[in-house]
Amino acid sequence: MSISLPRTIEWVGGLDGYVALIDQTRLPGELVMLECRDAESIWQAIRRLSVRGAPAIGIAGAMGLVLGIRDHAARDRESFLLRLDEVANYLATSRPTAADLFWALDRMKRVTRAADVADVAGLKLRLLTEAKRIRDENAASCRTIGEHGQHLIRDGIGVLTHCNAGSLATAEFGTALAPLYVAHESGRRFRVFATETRPLLQGSRLTTWELLQADIDVTLLCDGMAGALMAAGKVDLVITGADRIAANGDVANKVGTYVLAVLAQAHGIPFYVAAPTSTFDLALPDGSGIPIEHRAADEIRQGFGRTTAPAEVQCFSPAFDVTPARLIRGLISEKGLIEPVSAAGIAATLGR
Amino acid sequence: MSISLPRTIEWVGGLDGYVALIDQTRLPGELVMLECRDAESIWQAIRRLSVRGAPAIGIAGAMGLVLGIRDHAARDRESFLLRLDEVANYLATSRPTAADLFWALDRMKRVTRAADVADVAGLKLRLLTEAKRIRDENAASCRTIGEHGQHLIRDGIGVLTHCNAGSLATAEFGTALAPLYVAHESGRRFRVFATETRPLLQGSRLTTWELLQADIDVTLLCDGMAGALMAAGKVDLVITGADRIAANGDVANKVGTYVLAVLAQAHGIPFYVAAPTSTFDLALPDGSGIPIEHRAADEIRQGFGRTTAPAEVQCFSPAFDVTPARLIRGLISEKGLIEPVSAAGIAATLGR
Repeated sequence: MSISLPRTIEWVGGLDGYVALIDQTRLPGELVMLECRDAESIWQAIRRLSVRGAPAIGIAGAMGLVLGIRDHAARDRESFLLRLDEVANYLATSRPTAADLFWALDRMKRVTRAADVADVAGLKLRLLTEAKRIRDENAASCRTIGEHGQHLIRDGIGVLTHCNAGSLATAEFGTALAPLYVAHESGRRFRVFATETRPLLQGSRLTTWELLQADIDVTLLCDGMAGALMAAGKVDLVITGADRIAANGDVANKVGTYVLAVLAQAHGIPFYVAAPTSTFDLALPDGSGIPIEHRAADEIRQGFGRTTAPAEVQCFSPAFDVTPARLIRGLISEKGLIEPVSAAGIAATLGR
Repeated sequence: MSISLPRTIEWVGGLDGYVALIDQTRLPGELVMLECRDAESIWQAIRRLSVRGAPAIGIAGAMGLVLGIRDHAARDRESFLLRLDEVANYLATSRPTAADLFWALDRMKRVTRAADVADVAGLKLRLLTEAKRIRDENAASCRTIGEHGQHLIRDGIGVLTHCNAGSLATAEFGTALAPLYVAHESGRRFRVFATETRPLLQGSRLTTWELLQADIDVTLLCDGMAGALMAAGKVDLVITGADRIAANGDVANKVGTYVLAVLAQAHGIPFYVAAPTSTFDLALPDGSGIPIEHRAADEIRQGFGRTTAPAEVQCFSPAFDVTPARLIRGLISEKGLIEPVSAAGIAATLGR
């Protein structure tokens, strides 16, 4: 059977069109599309997590760049390029950790500079084409990641995942969830366990929602229950996405990922990370250089529109943590499976 | 300086009095006292977690037993003892895991049978005295636990705790938090990190509240952030309470405790458990025999009066997990510190 899920983000129409994206803050209650018509609304959508997940943020950034320059009046190439840098720098401030955002913005700038197009109108069209291509390539990459990883999803196993690295985090199909979708399409049956992923509950709100849409057996648990689940022998494999992967294979991903990796090692359970090559940042030798976003304390203290802690209590609220490469059995990218994880293996697979 | 916190649970008045307890489901928003005048309302208060924490549940059970028999019309001892068993059996169904509940109910029954009192009126008074004594002894035990454990709280360290094993979980002063209170009273300064403890947020709602009342430096984090916190070098010691401790030192405690124990070991951080001897269940050779309560799925799916997951998704929701003795550096009871943890050491310290 074939999996069909609504498109997370896409460009609608021509250069005067708009970006339509699923407002993920409204799931699972409602499936509402946001229409973004300028760079500011994309910046807000990224910051407020209406669109989230490293690959989807990259696509949103590229499309936001088009929205930010399409009405620019400059007729000369130089002033257009200045404006392009300005908008790209602005969009880059929306969130600091996901590698894909910076990768996508850099790619858009590089393509513009290399474009064999003299007039500004032509450059704008070239950029729109590139943004759409980034989306389409990500969709294809995710499918390929699913094919490279699907052999891990043996019939009857239990798979634990964290946060949402599914269709909603990408153009479609996902990264960590892609091997599950491919295995499901080929008729294998297995059980998925999704950690709710506090504070913003992407596992609870998004992962369970999209797996249920795809008719995949899914069970929700609180983050702190993963130890009991593993001790009960229910987990055969852990697979997560990534927000940034350093040259040595250290992975920054949603906070709590590192906890699962430590638990997986303690229980002898293989731990895999799936991500497109756009998530790799080979400029960073290891994970210690990855900037970690810290979120507002009220996401913990009042995350559900209710006071769940004293208003004055201080909070520790990193959005991501870093899992060292030594805890990761393999990295699954669209260019293949990197196992064991090593700087040399990563460089060879990425061809850089 | 001396710590002063409101009393978690106490008997007010004579045999025709009532049980006053802090309704912990209303914290941190409001400090509301519940007045229980029959065994049913105690059963409900335990089941709904208005009173929680193994020692406090034991006290509530003992006092609930008095409420359940004080109006019993029987004039003969035998029919009174039958009624006593009936009420005790009923109260024992409120929650299955905390050892202290069964310990307190057994103690009340044992005392009644041994009492050198012929008339039923005298037995009722004897039971009230015993229930109050259980409370007072727990208060004294907690203070002693604090004294046995306070040397662990060196000046300037960071201490991580989970759930609430504080004043609110006991008659007063707490188990895991008792060493912190004693150290604070003696002028030491340190930093406490409290995991929020999903799904019911006892860490977020209760532990931060009582530590702030006592003017102790506390920082709140989500359960999945404990790995990042330890990796950042902020934690020098982990200390939790217990709901039941088996003869070999395996500990059942709030779900997520085991996760912290695995993380602590991976980071070389000592992990301690504090509990009164009433929490030890020497009839169980190890933790595999401890019955683990599973809670309703909606505590995860709709824990904040809002839909945070698809209504139809299945949940894994154990209230407790089991931490094997090998991960525990020491057990702190009112009879002393058991370190290293072993069946022989436990038996010797408990004198059984």
